[in-house]
Amino acid sequence: MAKIEKERLEALRKVMAEHDIDCCIINSTDPHQSEIPPAHWRGREWLTGFKSENGTNGIAVVTNDLAYVWTDNRFFIQARQQLEETGFKMMPMDGPEGVDLVKYVAEMMPKDSVVAIDGMTFSSTEAESMRDAFVDAGLNFATDFPMFDYIWPERPEQPLNPLFIHDEEIVGETVDSKIARILKEVAAEGADAILMSALDDIAWTTNLRTAGDVAFSPVFPAYLYLDKEGNRLLFIKEEKLTDEVSEFLNKYHIELRGYDEVIGFAEAIPPSTCVLIDPGLTSVSIAEAIPTAIEGGKGVAKLKSVKNETMLTHWRTAMEKDGVALVKLFKWIDEEFPKGELTEMSIARKLRECRLADPDCVDESFAAIVGWNEHGAIVHYEPSDATDVPVRGKGLLLIDSGGQYRQGTTDITRTIALGGEPTEEQKHDFTLVLKGCIALARATFPRGTRGAQLDILARQYLWNEGKAYYHGTGHGVGFFINCHEGPAQIRMNEIPAPLEPGMVMSDEPGLYIEGKYGIRCENMLAVELWKSNEYGDFYRWRNLTLFPFDRSLIEWDIMTPDEKEWLEKYNEEIWERLSPLLSQEEATWLKAKIDY
Amino acid sequence: MAKIEKERLEALRKVMAEHDIDCCIINSTDPHQSEIPPAHWRGREWLTGFKSENGTNGIAVVTNDLAYVWTDNRFFIQARQQLEETGFKMMPMDGPEGVDLVKYVAEMMPKDSVVAIDGMTFSSTEAESMRDAFVDAGLNFATDFPMFDYIWPERPEQPLNPLFIHDEEIVGETVDSKIARILKEVAAEGADAILMSALDDIAWTTNLRTAGDVAFSPVFPAYLYLDKEGNRLLFIKEEKLTDEVSEFLNKYHIELRGYDEVIGFAEAIPPSTCVLIDPGLTSVSIAEAIPTAIEGGKGVAKLKSVKNETMLTHWRTAMEKDGVALVKLFKWIDEEFPKGELTEMSIARKLRECRLADPDCVDESFAAIVGWNEHGAIVHYEPSDATDVPVRGKGLLLIDSGGQYRQGTTDITRTIALGGEPTEEQKHDFTLVLKGCIALARATFPRGTRGAQLDILARQYLWNEGKAYYHGTGHGVGFFINCHEGPAQIRMNEIPAPLEPGMVMSDEPGLYIEGKYGIRCENMLAVELWKSNEYGDFYRWRNLTLFPFDRSLIEWDIMTPDEKEWLEKYNEEIWERLSPLLSQEEATWLKAKIDY
Repeated sequence: MAKIEKERLEALRKVMAEHDIDCCIINSTDPHQSEIPPAHWRGREWLTGFKSENGTNGIAVVTNDLAYVWTDNRFFIQARQQLEETGFKMMPMDGPEGVDLVKYVAEMMPKDSVVAIDGMTFSSTEAESMRDAFVDAGLNFATDFPMFDYIWPERPEQPLNPLFIHDEEIVGETVDSKIARILKEVAAEGADAILMSALDDIAWTTNLRTAGDVAFSPVFPAYLYLDKEGNRLLFIKEEKLTDEVSEFLNKYHIELRGYDEVIGFAEAIPPSTCVLIDPGLTSVSIAEAIPTAIEGGKGVAKLKSVKNETMLTHWRTAMEKDGVALVKLFKWIDEEFPKGELTEMSIARKLRECRLADPDCVDESFAAIVGWNEHGAIVHYEPSDATDVPVRGKGLLLIDSGGQYRQGTTDITRTIALGGEPTEEQKHDFTLVLKGCIALARATFPRGTRGAQLDILARQYLWNEGKAYYHGTGHGVGFFINCHEGPAQIRMNEIPAPLEPGMVMSDEPGLYIEGKYGIRCENMLAVELWKSNEYGDFYRWRNLTLFPFDRSLIEWDIMTPDEKEWLEKYNEEIWERLSPLLSQEEATWLKAKIDY
Repeated sequence: MAKIEKERLEALRKVMAEHDIDCCIINSTDPHQSEIPPAHWRGREWLTGFKSENGTNGIAVVTNDLAYVWTDNRFFIQARQQLEETGFKMMPMDGPEGVDLVKYVAEMMPKDSVVAIDGMTFSSTEAESMRDAFVDAGLNFATDFPMFDYIWPERPEQPLNPLFIHDEEIVGETVDSKIARILKEVAAEGADAILMSALDDIAWTTNLRTAGDVAFSPVFPAYLYLDKEGNRLLFIKEEKLTDEVSEFLNKYHIELRGYDEVIGFAEAIPPSTCVLIDPGLTSVSIAEAIPTAIEGGKGVAKLKSVKNETMLTHWRTAMEKDGVALVKLFKWIDEEFPKGELTEMSIARKLRECRLADPDCVDESFAAIVGWNEHGAIVHYEPSDATDVPVRGKGLLLIDSGGQYRQGTTDITRTIALGGEPTEEQKHDFTLVLKGCIALARATFPRGTRGAQLDILARQYLWNEGKAYYHGTGHGVGFFINCHEGPAQIRMNEIPAPLEPGMVMSDEPGLYIEGKYGIRCENMLAVELWKSNEYGDFYRWRNLTLFPFDRSLIEWDIMTPDEKEWLEKYNEEIWERLSPLLSQEEATWLKAKIDY
């Protein structure tokens, strides 16, 4: 039976015909290139019926007689199922059958056809590379087709949750100071002004947050314009402002403009003002509106990635809160498991409840991964009603989760054995992963070192046995903001961003045995200055995360004395900092977990 | 008192005036961008009197009233001394006072001036970036001023040493096979032909070598043109050809052209033939002469870098020969040292003698570094009559050297203690370096791994104590060809060339205590396939070098059981393979060195 999506597709084709458009390409993100867009910008999902992780995967292409959704290999099976009877077909973005979308459209469309996008949802970088290919192929390319304005009657409103101030006492830096530092970067890039589109950059700069606009991050839709004349303009829905926030903005001479006024404003900037934009994060509509734009603007992400000592001190509190939540969760799992009624989803719900019990925890920092046995081997697994399984019998449980605390964002993975003694193979694999996690945490390195240089430390014990994981080892973690941030990364591939004191990174090696189990150990680490001498400045890691690794999974024979000592000190710190925050019963449970 | 160089400078200025040239820029390399140019191309040295390592460092700039030599910080002191009274002044290329040559010339010269180079001695990449800067500054740029044709009466001839065939039995691949593989790369880059300028690429392709054309590498000046029509043209001085070589070339349908005919040939290539060149290795004069050139051509270096099993088998023989030479040298040092008459230079001479005693050793593979105590801390130290010191008393001796054997090139560094028990500090430092050398040699890694990912393995023990060395950890090693070759490198900085089975790399961490001593441990390693499984293909290293590390410098307490086992097996292999080749006395000496 045909689904509702078929009607939507026909409605789109009608509007395309009215606008003389032969092909339209529909993206899955918002005007800020957000990792997780608000519901208002999930038109591609609404149109096609294909719901990918966080909603950002999948690009639809519609012509008068064809309709496709491009997606990557993680979603092939799911997309094929969900697209049945919708009128859309799945197209592979990668893998052996991978098809290049832009090339495909360029070849498929007859000369002089009109190909259109909503220029708010594609970055300048993406749209310009499309334009090059389409113009070369003799096609016309239009960036002004906001298709969902015409065909989505029940389109959700833009989110209007109220903003609140992220206390400067926690943040350790005033908005004035941040703006001054940003304008210095702007000048260094030869520009007079900057127009910021990235929501985490804007929240960071303004020391403002909200709750609920997007899942898992306290950011809010806005644009921010700063120039060397002292103009500071925040483009935002006025409904989001409280009196307190208005006063706060006023104090920092930040003027307000309507969220939708940004294009008009950009067009009116005098051509003599050179405006810095990040072309990968700025929508092509805005980039095209600015008379004199120069590309760059990565400097804000770098400023944001370096956390000051005030933030790091508060992050200790967040880690204690998170540790307490996890003690409650894992103690509950220990107690409930024998009853045989746990499921991945019930654990995920309990986990959320444990974290959100703390009033400073605004949200989880991403959709928790709770994977029992073979589900643990699916790297991006997220339990749902459709996939949920009972957690009973015997096996390994992998939980990767985090919280958005006002005192800092957390991200932790623990793998535990349930239902009796794990197998020798499970212990061996777990210990290889743990040794890698410890090796990275113990690393010291000179100024200028990049993540790709350190990455092998986490992988070496696996590689030495011909085993491997193929995800990154570590990502930057934001401070009460996006859980994933750049520019530094700890990955096999080269990211030319050196690690600097104050950067906070995850350390998360893993191993995935398809159809059997998954293992991942993840802590968060902050770079700090260790020593300076005739060889230069050396850095080391300060561990942030506070929760024990499952000792029943450790094969002690392959742990070195240094590794054992690291674990012992780690457990001591966990005990010293968490036990005062626990009930007698919880403390007893924790004590048993760390007394090896 | 004014030196002869002043007259040479005046002669140059006269010729410049005759040609209406206001400024000329003089490079220190040859038309092949060689690391070590033949004497014929050392005009910059002859003109200015500044003699740098291998002759390739230093660029001179001459105008009617100014004359400079740009050089880098390794040569500041030496250049200032050597340039005294020559009419030239030293200009720093780098460091805090560093001056950008091109920018300086662009700013200094009045509009409409003529700046000239000998286009044979600058690569297309270098010359084009000069051209951009000079044209922007309103200057005229000429690339056709071969200044030394006019002012260097006693200019040495082009080298005319006879070629010989590098036996296909050793090389394991015919010229036909190599050319077929090159033309496949050429086609993949969208070209019809390739014009090769890099001497090591040409020697590799033709299976030809010579002795004495340039120091330390058996390559010879030539160009090679290959196209898909089957044309194979070698541009070379005909005096270099023996009957045997002529017959060999004839067998492979390689036609001969005069070395100097290359420009005329290039100009006459039909514009419909798309010729691949490597712009960093092709002189601008040749690049400009080709009607339709496309840039790329790195593929040949990659083919050359992957050695086949035949070569690796013969390399074992080269390593045995080299090990025997080193046994003779170090035994001699042990015997001579007590007499108190050794010097760095006498050791370097003996070292050369020990290697060249083997008829298959054509030359050393680079100027041997023999550094006693504080000289060992100068990374690029090369002893000369001016710097030579007695090797007596007590201390550390660092010897980095290699040989050009028909069966393979060698490169090895050993650091030994002489004159009694080394200090605890020396032992500790040596052991940190040795541990790094072993860690890299023991590494296993999946397909696609690049050198920058492995580099930390060699540095980690130093970094953990806040110590560091700032040279690369490993370079590619050629097979009876240049000792340094690309594309893969093991360095801190990213070089996007994955390590592949058959690549041979050096493994040479070090530590340098200024004014006291230098330590370096260097072996050569070949990448080989280790295992393939569900995680992919994994590689490991096969050790090639055969000579023991000085056990008196090892601090055993910080060596792990795995490292001790590696050393033990290494010494066993040395004994098994070298002892049958040694005299009774030499074997006894070696036995004592490896019986820990």
